[in-house]
Amino acid sequence: MFPTKKVQSLIGSVVQVEMKGDKHILEGKLESADEYMNLHLVETYEIADGVKSRSLGSVILRGNNIIMLCPVG
Amino acid sequence: MFPTKKVQSLIGSVVQVEMKGDKHILEGKLESADEYMNLHLVETYEIADGVKSRSLGSVILRGNNIIMLCPVG
Amino acid sequence: MFPTKKVQSLIGSVVQVEMKGDKHILEGKLESADEYMNLHLVETYEIADGVKSRSLGSVILRGNNIIMLCPVG
Amino acid sequence: MFPTKKVQSLIGSVVQVEMKGDKHILEGKLESADEYMNLHLVETYEIADGVKSRSLGSVILRGNNIIMLCPVG
Amino acid sequence: MFPTKKVQSLIGSVVQVEMKGDKHILEGKLESADEYMNLHLVETYEIADGVKSRSLGSVILRGNNIIMLCPVG
Amino acid sequence: MFPTKKVQSLIGSVVQVEMKGDKHILEGKLESADEYMNLHLVETYEIADGVKSRSLGSVILRGNNIIMLCPVG
Repeated sequence: MFPTKKVQSLIGSVVQVEMKGDKHILEGKLESADEYMNLHLVETYEIADGVKSRSLGSVILRGNNIIMLCPVG
Repeated sequence: MFPTKKVQSLIGSVVQVEMKGDKHILEGKLESADEYMNLHLVETYEIADGVKSRSLGSVILRGNNIIMLCPVG
Repeated sequence: MFPTKKVQSLIGSVVQVEMKGDKHILEGKLESADEYMNLHLVETYEIADGVKSRSLGSVILRGNNIIMLCPVG
Repeated sequence: MFPTKKVQSLIGSVVQVEMKGDKHILEGKLESADEYMNLHLVETYEIADGVKSRSLGSVILRGNNIIMLCPVG
Repeated sequence: MFPTKKVQSLIGSVVQVEMKGDKHILEGKLESADEYMNLHLVETYEIADGVKSRSLGSVILRGNNIIMLCPVG
Repeated sequence: MFPTKKVQSLIGSVVQVEMKGDKHILEGKLESADEYMNLHLVETYEIADGVKSRSLGSVILRGNNIIMLCPVG
């Protein structure tokens, strides 16, 4: 399964996403994703030192600034 | 709804946008957006430490330098 | 008006452009712009601490490295 | 063999990938790769000071944020 | 004249190019340029504190990592 | 000769490549290159303070993260 198809397969699941910038990690439910890996997450939290630190709700992430995406749990 | 469609659905609303660079956060009314997530914001403010710090008025943001976009309120 | 059309509408006006890198801000007259937001500015100055610090004359800016563009005045 | 074909030829093997950001190195089995060098790794570990430091399991990496990819062993 | 055409018009002239990274400035004769602003410079020098510091000869620069390009003299 | 053609002309030769990130310089024999300047190098070394510091063997480099490429010798 191609990487972008793998991302599609995670829609509806909780994912962790590491963005560019200072150790910027987000966790949320993947609502949608397109071929560029632009993502729409809901029930999103910022993760600091491994724990949820700040609630962000609904966020859109620009695909080219994603370093890494992992399924959670 | 695809991420870029979600962005389109926010036109006319106030959004917060985190740009690349040193914790560069902007808040403004989303006037227009294209498929690359290039954005035109009006009544834009720079946000520092969670509060509006500087009025910027009308600004155009380059999509590839957007880390994250959230609806406000 | 789409963001790139908004940029086109500023041709002939003075604009401020924030580039990637250490608070790199330029101000100049927008001579031309293309669909990627590559820009040609003339009578360009570097802005440091809010004031014109260095004259650069005619410069070409690569669109993908533009953080933000605002009309001036 | 073109670089992206070379990457394809490594599917099923263990690879090290250096991502943008602070010396961010990952090692895992290459499950899939596309023409943009988006990668899906499984049995992935973070590498710090040359040793495996943290198990990450299944991860998707965005191609444009890959600095370098090497086969391991 | 579009920005990339302006760059084409500088072929054969000496240009200064600021690249991403720590104030990385190069000066050389523009041998060729394509639509992505990939550049081939010859008789290239690194510029540090405004003076030529290191001779690099023939170099190829990746367009997306160019911040700014100016004609010299 | 266009910049990407110039890169093609270096296949089989030793090149130095400066990548994004902390003064990350590699030297190796250019095995292949595509239109995006993705590169496959063999017999690759990391260069630190101008000398070969670490042998990396066969590496693939993502084109968009290349700052500069020069022929060696």
